[in-house]
Amino acid sequence: MTFDGMWAELLPVGRDPQSGGYRRFAWTRTDHDLREWFAAEASSRGLDLTVDRAGNQWAWWGDPDRDGPGLVLGSHLDSVPDGGAYDGPLGVVTALATVEALQRQGFRPSRPIGVVNFVDEEGARFGIACAGSRIITGVLDADRARGLRDGDGRSLAEAMTTAGQDPRALGRDEETLRRVGTFVELHVEQGRGLADLDRAVAVGSAIWPHGRWRLDLAGEANHAGTTRLEDRHDPMLSLAAAITTARDAASGQGCVATVGKVRVEPNGVNAIPSHVTAWLDARGPAEPGVRAVVEEVAERTGVRPVEESWTGQTPFDPALAARLAALLGEAPVLATGAGHDAGILATAGVPTAMLFVRNPTGVSHSPAEHAEHADCLAGVEALTAVARELAS
Amino acid sequence: MTFDGMWAELLPVGRDPQSGGYRRFAWTRTDHDLREWFAAEASSRGLDLTVDRAGNQWAWWGDPDRDGPGLVLGSHLDSVPDGGAYDGPLGVVTALATVEALQRQGFRPSRPIGVVNFVDEEGARFGIACAGSRIITGVLDADRARGLRDGDGRSLAEAMTTAGQDPRALGRDEETLRRVGTFVELHVEQGRGLADLDRAVAVGSAIWPHGRWRLDLAGEANHAGTTRLEDRHDPMLSLAAAITTARDAASGQGCVATVGKVRVEPNGVNAIPSHVTAWLDARGPAEPGVRAVVEEVAERTGVRPVEESWTGQTPFDPALAARLAALLGEAPVLATGAGHDAGILATAGVPTAMLFVRNPTGVSHSPAEHAEHADCLAGVEALTAVARELAS
Repeated sequence: MTFDGMWAELLPVGRDPQSGGYRRFAWTRTDHDLREWFAAEASSRGLDLTVDRAGNQWAWWGDPDRDGPGLVLGSHLDSVPDGGAYDGPLGVVTALATVEALQRQGFRPSRPIGVVNFVDEEGARFGIACAGSRIITGVLDADRARGLRDGDGRSLAEAMTTAGQDPRALGRDEETLRRVGTFVELHVEQGRGLADLDRAVAVGSAIWPHGRWRLDLAGEANHAGTTRLEDRHDPMLSLAAAITTARDAASGQGCVATVGKVRVEPNGVNAIPSHVTAWLDARGPAEPGVRAVVEEVAERTGVRPVEESWTGQTPFDPALAARLAALLGEAPVLATGAGHDAGILATAGVPTAMLFVRNPTGVSHSPAEHAEHADCLAGVEALTAVARELAS
Repeated sequence: MTFDGMWAELLPVGRDPQSGGYRRFAWTRTDHDLREWFAAEASSRGLDLTVDRAGNQWAWWGDPDRDGPGLVLGSHLDSVPDGGAYDGPLGVVTALATVEALQRQGFRPSRPIGVVNFVDEEGARFGIACAGSRIITGVLDADRARGLRDGDGRSLAEAMTTAGQDPRALGRDEETLRRVGTFVELHVEQGRGLADLDRAVAVGSAIWPHGRWRLDLAGEANHAGTTRLEDRHDPMLSLAAAITTARDAASGQGCVATVGKVRVEPNGVNAIPSHVTAWLDARGPAEPGVRAVVEEVAERTGVRPVEESWTGQTPFDPALAARLAALLGEAPVLATGAGHDAGILATAGVPTAMLFVRNPTGVSHSPAEHAEHADCLAGVEALTAVARELAS
């Protein structure tokens, strides 16, 4: 099936009719449908499907165990809550379209070519981004992973079991990693770098250092109508300070910082909250700036942020990036503030590259996320050229 | 049963073992248990139980239809989320204890005495405070009431039907109102007025004007890692402005204002929110000050607050308040920022008074809400004296 056919098939899966955004969360019924779709597309191209210890799906053209490590293309099919259609699926669909194009052209790859669908890249359900790649590289401990819980209190182990996947298998997967000689992830750009440069495709240079922190803002529950202002311990005021400080500090440091998630207890109209939990996401070109932002928030709120995750700067293979940029007509080379499975694999020592496809508005993680059809096809063309270059 | 016995029986009902606070919401299983308890206590004192068109329970000593309008004591048994033990129940239990004391003393009332348990005073489930008294006085339209929905999308009509109450009966209840000659509601104080004055019991003068407003803060969903600060439309910044402006403006106007409830969409750690809804509660000694607070929030956020409820200053019967204050040894006369069923009845033309029992910390709407045992008994004594005064 062509790019257009695959794209049309995926469009309705997990789409919320109200918001128009996607709710494709790991190990749900929707995720199951997406995995079945991937398996069918692999099968129709004669690819051999394997599922690794974390549940990531790999579709191989050729035998990487016999013919040495292969070139892997792909991305993920899950989404953030009310996410867009492109973040993830564009990388999987262009990879499948690339294999199809090579097969149609009669191309005989010098080494196996694989297409991967990483599970739970967004971490929307269990809170850890890139869970699938983190587990097989051993970055995320198997016991910790099994115990992760979703908003309804269900553990990842329970969710996997319900979905027919054995959670006891979770862990670093040497056999799978050994098969991956090079990984190239194509992704819709999540900013306006290409739009500003008037180019359709870029090559990735690095992922910014980034982290997530939890702010536990303590207060004292009390009646909103009868408690004098001077007697209040209202954690909402600390929340306001965290929000404004994060923005101002990020601006001063040339970083980005966001308070996107908040939990208020008891969250009643006429109750001063007893507790507010807020999550801070901060990223930037270099670690000291990001750390400075978090430090300013800590000082201003008087609360020590709890670091829930931290990833240092992740450079992709510089020689590979230069080679691909030259191949693609001196394509721009851009860094990104978003985390990707490609970053996890690069950190694990896999020679890795990323391609970005132009996003005219830069909007991402939103129903309004978009890429022009012509640019998507330019992405297939670029990925096909890259595969020919790396598997000849 | 004595005050202590009744209090001990109520203590475990609807108590959350984790927080220690109460979750007694209208027309739930817990509410059903509380209503059964009230009916049994009424029966054990030989009182006649009637349920009005809104579901409020009235227990009569004597026949108000035959012997003219009576004196009614009482309050409510429901709670806010994680509320305290005293707000509501103290008024019901002291009323029942008062009837028992009068009966034991061989008192022969000159007019019927009733005890009321108002349903859904806190509005914790369906969003409208004092729903029971608002419905029987016609302040809350029956059709609107039936259509109110809780957080799970269940309507009040459905909840009442499940609880065995007929929602078609909802509406202004002339028959019930005709029976109420005077209403006296005893309530734990929700501030530190009595603690500062070193007195156990006060008489209420008025309820402050108060209202609730909804702030619809629009933003644009986007990726937290890749969207430049200058390209963002982040409604969290408006929320921060609303919180700090509400506090500053209230301080300047001698009012209180609270942002206690917030809804963030999609509420993801790495997503700039598409929308934040916040609720503002503002109250003060006079309307212009309260309006000025709301106006400042509107100006600072650029959003017109939607008024969800408004209640002007509600004075209680001044002659009655003076009479009761004199009776109770020149008890202090205090205004309150909290709404009460007593305020709804006063507005409907019922001669109404309130008694407040000392709250040593002033904390209310919280598991930490407390009144000393001796002060609760002082409340029973005061209410008994009031009943003797008004039904002799």
